[in-house]
Amino acid sequence: MMKIDLNADLGESFGIYHIGNDERLMPLISSANIACGFHAGDPSVMRRSVALCLEHDVAIGAHPGLPDLQGFGRRAMAVTAEEAHDVVLYQIGALRAFVEAEGGRLRHVKPHGALYHMTIEDRALARAVAEAIYKASAELIVVGFPESALLHEAEQFGLRTASEAFIDRAYNSDGTLVSRAVPGAVIAEVEQAVAQALGIIIDKKVTSIAGTDVAIEAQTLCIHGDSMQAVQMAQRVVEVLAGKNISITAMR
Amino acid sequence: MMKIDLNADLGESFGIYHIGNDERLMPLISSANIACGFHAGDPSVMRRSVALCLEHDVAIGAHPGLPDLQGFGRRAMAVTAEEAHDVVLYQIGALRAFVEAEGGRLRHVKPHGALYHMTIEDRALARAVAEAIYKASAELIVVGFPESALLHEAEQFGLRTASEAFIDRAYNSDGTLVSRAVPGAVIAEVEQAVAQALGIIIDKKVTSIAGTDVAIEAQTLCIHGDSMQAVQMAQRVVEVLAGKNISITAMR
Amino acid sequence: MMKIDLNADLGESFGIYHIGNDERLMPLISSANIACGFHAGDPSVMRRSVALCLEHDVAIGAHPGLPDLQGFGRRAMAVTAEEAHDVVLYQIGALRAFVEAEGGRLRHVKPHGALYHMTIEDRALARAVAEAIYKASAELIVVGFPESALLHEAEQFGLRTASEAFIDRAYNSDGTLVSRAVPGAVIAEVEQAVAQALGIIIDKKVTSIAGTDVAIEAQTLCIHGDSMQAVQMAQRVVEVLAGKNISITAMR
Amino acid sequence: MMKIDLNADLGESFGIYHIGNDERLMPLISSANIACGFHAGDPSVMRRSVALCLEHDVAIGAHPGLPDLQGFGRRAMAVTAEEAHDVVLYQIGALRAFVEAEGGRLRHVKPHGALYHMTIEDRALARAVAEAIYKASAELIVVGFPESALLHEAEQFGLRTASEAFIDRAYNSDGTLVSRAVPGAVIAEVEQAVAQALGIIIDKKVTSIAGTDVAIEAQTLCIHGDSMQAVQMAQRVVEVLAGKNISITAMR
Repeated sequence: MMKIDLNADLGESFGIYHIGNDERLMPLISSANIACGFHAGDPSVMRRSVALCLEHDVAIGAHPGLPDLQGFGRRAMAVTAEEAHDVVLYQIGALRAFVEAEGGRLRHVKPHGALYHMTIEDRALARAVAEAIYKASAELIVVGFPESALLHEAEQFGLRTASEAFIDRAYNSDGTLVSRAVPGAVIAEVEQAVAQALGIIIDKKVTSIAGTDVAIEAQTLCIHGDSMQAVQMAQRVVEVLAGKNISITAMR
Repeated sequence: MMKIDLNADLGESFGIYHIGNDERLMPLISSANIACGFHAGDPSVMRRSVALCLEHDVAIGAHPGLPDLQGFGRRAMAVTAEEAHDVVLYQIGALRAFVEAEGGRLRHVKPHGALYHMTIEDRALARAVAEAIYKASAELIVVGFPESALLHEAEQFGLRTASEAFIDRAYNSDGTLVSRAVPGAVIAEVEQAVAQALGIIIDKKVTSIAGTDVAIEAQTLCIHGDSMQAVQMAQRVVEVLAGKNISITAMR
Repeated sequence: MMKIDLNADLGESFGIYHIGNDERLMPLISSANIACGFHAGDPSVMRRSVALCLEHDVAIGAHPGLPDLQGFGRRAMAVTAEEAHDVVLYQIGALRAFVEAEGGRLRHVKPHGALYHMTIEDRALARAVAEAIYKASAELIVVGFPESALLHEAEQFGLRTASEAFIDRAYNSDGTLVSRAVPGAVIAEVEQAVAQALGIIIDKKVTSIAGTDVAIEAQTLCIHGDSMQAVQMAQRVVEVLAGKNISITAMR
Repeated sequence: MMKIDLNADLGESFGIYHIGNDERLMPLISSANIACGFHAGDPSVMRRSVALCLEHDVAIGAHPGLPDLQGFGRRAMAVTAEEAHDVVLYQIGALRAFVEAEGGRLRHVKPHGALYHMTIEDRALARAVAEAIYKASAELIVVGFPESALLHEAEQFGLRTASEAFIDRAYNSDGTLVSRAVPGAVIAEVEQAVAQALGIIIDKKVTSIAGTDVAIEAQTLCIHGDSMQAVQMAQRVVEVLAGKNISITAMR
């Protein structure tokens, strides 16, 4: 029986501000990446998000971001490798306190937004982030983009890694994501997303925006849930996977 | 041989802003309370502060504060008990990640500023803070004002507690601190502070601002180091304690 | 022909976080109180909110709050009078820059949340806030709770003032608002809110939660728009006022 | 009689954190660039800094930075042109409120740190910042690096501009600043800095780090005062300029 992990970014509300459909996504996913208070989330949101994960038996990961609440951690910042190390270790520790307070265990770490993208290519930054994760715990799984500097550096520390693919983002022929600035970058059509998900899981490939086949190896699929349409897409993917007898299981 | 713990609040720098004389205080104290990024401190300052403590074999504690960098956590805020619980657990977790990354162990927690003062009387708030500490670890020692609600509530959770006294603050006849707004609230004269320290340790009493004797039981003495004069006061206290054969030892 | 001002708190989104129904409220109100980046709002949200007001010919006011984004400015904080003065003057200046950049004029100031409530009774704080408004411009109208210290102090500076009443909040017999902690504090029933609005405008009184008549003098009615139900309530009030030939007009 | 403007970055303290030697620099300079609360400064620091400038008859400018207190606005951030426009207009407005409250007038704007450097080359960002300044007031002088995109764009809006040179920074042969990462980037020797200042003012050239002559046209010289040594350097420059009968006068 095949299996795949489905992950989603959750716990991104802040104070009175509410975003996401965490309650609706929980029954669908096997892993959650919880914001840690820098780009989104606050201590109370984190506590509630952790409780929700434990209730639904969803594997909990930290989703550390740059210190930029106003930009939702999506704006690249010229942080030093040392600063990146420190903000990641800080955020992992903060989230882990909530997880362990509830009797759970932190399973993985996936950098958020600009930090995710910056550590695809920047080896020094990637190494610093990997080191922070390693220092937090050698048991953590690092989730990142396939072939990214982050995953390579994490392996150097002996950390387990999981390559991530996206069901609703178009790919270039070289395996990179089509920039959000380009029309067609985001796949809005449900059945197209379902087909992409199946292609990744079963055939280990996606059809690029140029129509070419691109080999892709992923241990986890990222699904979004910020709109009701995204939730419906996630529901449909889960339904189709069930029909194909593909088990949705947390990494490792 | 008598012994006493000397604690100081450290790691209160932020970004390019530098305060305190952490390097000078380290050789004098047995316990450090490290700011956790809410009222002061940032992830990089925290990492460096932890390293400095480990180098000097100083017991490390978390010094969580209210989310008020501009007010240095000194302005009372109407946080709910739940919010207090959450910000304390968050900050303990964040600091602990740095401590454990360096092979150390977090020993104690002492709330900072307004949170310290609010939990002297407010039982619900004190309970929430005590619970956060307990959930972080049942091994942590809670440092607080003698007879405070915080210490009472901590004991309800089975946590070890340490009463704190101040060498450079004047006391009222009822054992409370003289408000900083009152002249004479802060003891500036070195030998007076030394006498107060010895009184607390040996005779278990202080002379109040009104001239009366006040019984005081303290397991730890707080010393300040924000000015060079404060550092000199701390040095003199340490020197006198050595002369009296009183050992400076971390709590428990 | 009678007239009344309808005001609403707007521009409370932040970064990717969206709250409120500003577009829907704009055609209904005569005055908007725009968040200034401390408790809510950010520079880009402020720019867009100002543009929206000018488009709908809605009078623009500043809605300065305490520096507490996480608590939405609703948590009382022990700020000094000087700090209150400074944060208010800062926020008025920031918002005014956007208003004047678009050729508009800032008309009024209404403190937000905890700052609004703290300046009802605290005379020193009220005086500091009034002074900040006066220093920003002697032409500004100060909006506050009837008989509040803020309005009294504003008058001492020669500022024009406007008493505010609420269509969807229950009143105590002494004219204060029923605390949100008490059942029935918020009026959810549309026709009851409409009746309260008419009572305030025409008879200058409300029926308290205890059933007694309470005299109330208001130059402006606050309407909320954070939920679709609140928007419907606002629409109904506007409709009824039109039917009664009561003109909705900005203060002064 | 020749004249030159001497400017310094001031008001960079925050909360209890104190940096700079503002009181010592005030008698030496003709223009001050005051931090506006994003990379440094807070409303109370701003009020005091403005008062200090007015007392010493120093021309007041806004020194807006990126929203990055922890990085002191020195870390480049991928803000959009629109976001840059909005944060600059916000900060100018906030500072101007304090200036006008004290009966003064805001004279100029000089972006801080990463924003200063990003607008040297990035034309779209420069245009957005220039537009924000123009919208704040067509009377403001824009201070920037010679030949920078910012000054070019400011001129398109009809704004007056002032080119800035540095007395304590080494120049490359192409007129750019030697990166701080390169040894010799900062001139520590007082007489060398004095010579560079005179070269800029009288001969309109500096000697580059490679020994070549570089033409430079500057209406204002930036002097630093963050260390006592920097203050001494500033004092010596002022002394020598007085001896040469060169008047220190605010721009325009």
